[in-house]
This record gives sequence, C-alpha cells and structure tokens, in this order.
Amino acid sequence: MPFDLVPGATVGVLGGGQLGRMLALAAAKLGLKTHIYAPDPESPAFDVASARTIAPYEDEQALMAFAAQVELITYEFENIPSRTAAVLSDACLVRPSPDTLAICQDRLAEKEFLTAAGIKTAPYMRVDDAGALARAVAQLGRPSILKTRRFGYDGKGQVMLREGADLAVTFRTLGGTPAILEAIVPFAKEISVVAARGPGGAFAAYDVCENLHENHILKSTRAPARLPPEIAAEAVRLTRVIVDALDYAGVVAVEMFVVGEADAGIELCVNEIAPRVHNSGHWTIEGAVTSQFEQHIRAIAGWPLGAASRIGAQENGYVEMTNLIGEDVLSWAKILNDPGTNLHLYGKAEARPGRKMGHVTRIMP
Amino acid sequence: MPFDLVPGATVGVLGGGQLGRMLALAAAKLGLKTHIYAPDPESPAFDVASARTIAPYEDEQALMAFAAQVELITYEFENIPSRTAAVLSDACLVRPSPDTLAICQDRLAEKEFLTAAGIKTAPYMRVDDAGALARAVAQLGRPSILKTRRFGYDGKGQVMLREGADLAVTFRTLGGTPAILEAIVPFAKEISVVAARGPGGAFAAYDVCENLHENHILKSTRAPARLPPEIAAEAVRLTRVIVDALDYAGVVAVEMFVVGEADAGIELCVNEIAPRVHNSGHWTIEGAVTSQFEQHIRAIAGWPLGAASRIGAQENGYVEMTNLIGEDVLSWAKILNDPGTNLHLYGKAEARPGRKMGHVTRIMP
Repeated sequence: MPFDLVPGATVGVLGGGQLGRMLALAAAKLGLKTHIYAPDPESPAFDVASARTIAPYEDEQALMAFAAQVELITYEFENIPSRTAAVLSDACLVRPSPDTLAICQDRLAEKEFLTAAGIKTAPYMRVDDAGALARAVAQLGRPSILKTRRFGYDGKGQVMLREGADLAVTFRTLGGTPAILEAIVPFAKEISVVAARGPGGAFAAYDVCENLHENHILKSTRAPARLPPEIAAEAVRLTRVIVDALDYAGVVAVEMFVVGEADAGIELCVNEIAPRVHNSGHWTIEGAVTSQFEQHIRAIAGWPLGAASRIGAQENGYVEMTNLIGEDVLSWAKILNDPGTNLHLYGKAEARPGRKMGHVTRIMP
Repeated sequence: MPFDLVPGATVGVLGGGQLGRMLALAAAKLGLKTHIYAPDPESPAFDVASARTIAPYEDEQALMAFAAQVELITYEFENIPSRTAAVLSDACLVRPSPDTLAICQDRLAEKEFLTAAGIKTAPYMRVDDAGALARAVAQLGRPSILKTRRFGYDGKGQVMLREGADLAVTFRTLGGTPAILEAIVPFAKEISVVAARGPGGAFAAYDVCENLHENHILKSTRAPARLPPEIAAEAVRLTRVIVDALDYAGVVAVEMFVVGEADAGIELCVNEIAPRVHNSGHWTIEGAVTSQFEQHIRAIAGWPLGAASRIGAQENGYVEMTNLIGEDVLSWAKILNDPGTNLHLYGKAEARPGRKMGHVTRIMP
C-alpha cells in the first residue's frame, strides 16, 4: 500500500478549535508536525502546533503559502468556503476530498446524496424563497424545522416552524438564504457512528454511540449505544455505504435517529454526515485502542487503520463522555479529584455560555 | 489543598527531547500551555509547545526571561548546571526542587543520601584522583565500574575497570573529573518504580517495572515486573521513603537491582534516582489510567494525583514497552500494520545509532 505521508511530514489543518488541537496532539504522537490555519489569533490548537497561519479562509495568498508548507491538508469543520477548498486542492492533497466537503456542507446536497444512496432521511423540501417555504409547509406540515443549507452547527442556522408562525418572517429570520424544510422525526434515540475509511477502502467503525443533546449542543455520549445488535450493525452498514459512495478518506461521523420501538419495528434515519472527527467520538481517546484523532491521521495519511475496538469491553461495560459547556468547566478541580475520571481541557480563555470548554471521560468496566 | 497552577497557566520545561515533548502533550490535555527551553533548535518538544526559548542553559539573561513568562518550571533531565537551577528558583517555583536536583545529579551525593536513609546501594567509594582510585580498587576489587559523579546517562560517563587496566589511564579516560567507583552487583533483574508525590505528601506508584538494557540503553520494559508480591511492595516502600525524605514533588523513577533468588533471599539495591518522568514509565500512556506525563503535571501543579492503576489488569496480563533505537524506527510502517500496537514517534529527523527515536507499547490482556 502506498503511504501518502512519512513521519516528519507536516499535516495542515484548517480550523484551530479543540478538534484541531486534538488532531495535532495525535499527529505529534505519530511523529508528524502540524500547521494550523485559523483566522482567530486565540485559536486553542495553536498551542500545540509546530506552525501557525492566522488569516481569513478567503485569503488566497495565505492559503497558497499554507499549502506550500504542508504535505497534506485536512480540516476540523466542514463550513469552509468551497473556493477555499478549491484553491487548496489545486496545490495540495486535501482529505476528505473537496467533493465530499461540497456534499456535507450543504444540507440539500447531503439529503439528495443520501436519498440517491437509498438511505432514509427526514422528509425534506428545498426552500429558496418564501413561496417555496409555503409549498413545503403545505406538504410537510408543522411543526417542522427550517434550516439554512450552509454554515449551520450546534443549532445555529435553524428555526422551529410552529403553528401560526409567519412564513415570510421566519424565512427572513434565517437571513433569506437558501434553506431546506425538514419534517420532525419522532425519534426514540439519537446515535452516531464514528468510523474511518482509508483511501484504499479499508474501513473500521467504533462502537455505535448514543448521544444526548441539550439546547442543540451535544451534552453526553455513551458507547456502546443501548440498541438491539442488529440495529447497531445496520447503523455501521449504512455508514459504510455512505463512505464507500463518497470514496471517503478520513474519520467520519454519521448522526442518525432511531425511530420506533423494538416491538413495532425500528428504523434508522440519517440526520447528518460530519466529514471529520466528531464530538461524539471523544470517548475513543481513552476508551478505544486507537483514538478517533489518531485514526483520522492514519486514514488521511494512507496508513493502516488502527484497531477501533473498545478497551476493556466487558458484557455490561461502557464509556461515557460528558462535555464541559460554558461554566461547567469551573468544576475542573472537583473533576480532578475523581481519580478514575479523565479530564480534557481545551485551553480556551473565556467560558462563554454554550462554548465547549472541555470534556470528561469515564470508563465503566 | 491549594493549587499552584490553574488551567491556562504556562509550565516551563527545561529540555526539549522526547520527555519534554510528551510532558507538553499531557499538559495540553489539561488545558495548560508549555514553554520549552532548550539549546538545540531542532528539539522535538518545540513542535508541540506554545512557546520556545533556544538558548544555552548557562545564558542567565535567557533564563530570567523564561522564568518571567511561566508560572512553574520543571525539567526533563537532571543534568542541569546547579547555577541554572539556582537562577531559575530565585524567580519561579521549580519542581522537583533544586535541592533534589543537586542530590540526583551527583552520583556521590545520591549514594550518600540513600545510605543515610538506610537504603542499600552498590558498595561505592569516592574517587577524586588516581590515588583515590587505587585505594578504591584495593577495597572494592575488580571488575568494578568507574563513573563520573555528574552528567552521566545511557552508559555515558562510565567505564568498566577490568583486571590489568591502568588506573591512571582509566581515570584520565573519564576526563579526570570527580568520580565514584562502584562494585558490580550480581543482579538477577533490573526493576524500576515510577511513582508520583504531590507537594502535600500524596503518593501514587505504578506497577513495578522490569527493565531490559542493551548497550547501557533501556531496550524494553514490562509491567508488572515478575517478582514475589512482597518484593514488589518493598520496592514501592523504598521509593516512598526516598521521596518523603526529599520532600519531593513530581514523578520519580527509582532504578533498583534485584539481587539473589527467591530461595536464598532477595535483596533490593537502589541504583539511581531519576527526578523526572522516565523511559521505563512510557507504558503508562496506554497502560495506566493516568500517564506518567499527566501525573507529573498534576504533581508539580499541586493537583490531586490521578489513578496509577494498570488498565484492564487481568491475572496474567501485562504491558510491554519497547524502545525504537536508531534504525529500529525504520520499521514504523510494519509496526503500524499491527492494529493492537501503539506506535510513538518523537519527531527526530536523524536516526543516529543509540538515539531514542520512538517506542512501541503492547497491552497483553
């Protein structure tokens, strides 16, 4: 198998948040250097990178200089201008590919891709203007969710459309940009599959994760998810269908809704594809043989994937990851006092509400 | 308990090798920044530090500037000029303390400290000149080992004194500097205890390690050591006696010889105290709940110590760490292919003979 990187090479990472920071730590373990590109001079990933570029994602001169200094480029989030990905991929290998990025950063393209692959999603309709919104509401009903096609995360760029809401006002609330309307899926559980695919097609999935959101932000993840084994296997199968169809390279997280109960028949409905390491995979740092961050580096480098098995997996054992959001982080000293608990802090100065400041992992044997 | 550091603070590290690098990675996990001070511009720890000083250890101006930019100073090796430690500790908290450093960096002071603490060492005599060497040989016999008092590591600064060797020539071979002569201990096994002590006296020891050296360089470590349980407990007890006597703060590694066989009575003989994280503790990164690197940061920060227990410890399970020395590292791709093996590379450009380039950890359940 050809290797696309050798130890000593430099991986370029677009984005300087906690995901970039943990990617840099994993790259360092493997003898690789990291060059972080981010607009914010306070980016936490800068603290552990061998090189930094502070520049907007639209600065083509800075992008070209960055591409010239690294052997491979990846990203910690998918909301990168498509022009940015195009400029970089002209000069350097970008993984996951700009084509994948184009699909995953556009909710409409993503839904159409999934539908074409035969994978169930929430019912949706394209909404380009207030008139289209009226037609979509007529078809999908209320309550439903209006989401911008691009640049949404952690509940940003979406609004719940309830009975009586004025459609034109709602459309303007989201900036009047291209959007989709999604029917609400009455799910029993939210799960995600974090998996890796190598450029040659190698595939390794972690235990399916069960996720709890609060205020649209991931609060906690438990692995493995409490699911019938055949449903967990189906979730992994769907993930493999997706990454094979994308000819994917890297770690991916596929968020799914579990709909229905065991007796009445359970269905899986894919909500979102995150073409990157993912918050619901943080438990793998201590909880799996290979962390999602190392796995992503291995996958984009064209290296063999590491084992994705859970550590110390007993019959009823599980791993639990809890995010420290905003002022949650003030309990760091208390958490340190619990000797079996793994504390991760992201080095962010200000504990603003809704900001992911760190996380805690507990392995329950 | 008062905390001496809070997240966001900067830890200064003297030395930029793999130990400094892995300390920086552990500090980042805890939301701390690292400032690495090292003379070599190619220091591997620079790649993961938020700040760097490239200057000789004797540059007092650079030392003062460094001390002013960090909240606490530690080191990755003990061969620091005593003047350096004194200059730094006038300006900043240094842990482990300069007093500890003074003892551990001088083989004579170390042996005298151990003897005063009632701990057995190899028989030794002080050798300040060729005449003293002759008297020491008359008492300790041959073969024996002549070692410089300071600046020895990995077999450097020592020479075996065999029958027929000219004493004056041998003394000059080592530079004519103050030395000690040590009798050879006919050991059955080399072990080490890696443990941590907090500034308030908290103590946590990892499983005792069994070490294999080749050409005076650590080749591999296995934890736990194959020892009668009462001998392992005694090794930990001796370590606690040592760190309590030193009023130690940080991770320590105490190297010991196991002398004799089970039937004839086993004795432990302390060879060396390393006042820092240690190669024989690398297995703790994957093999223990808290790695020695995180434990050192916790200990010097005055934070609660983490659990030092081995992960997934079964009846006959163990962890094995093997160093990649010199060209061993060329097998990195082969090692990556073994999915249960953890590869660590230190980011050093040139695979010189005897140079520690990385290590590999295997957990045997």
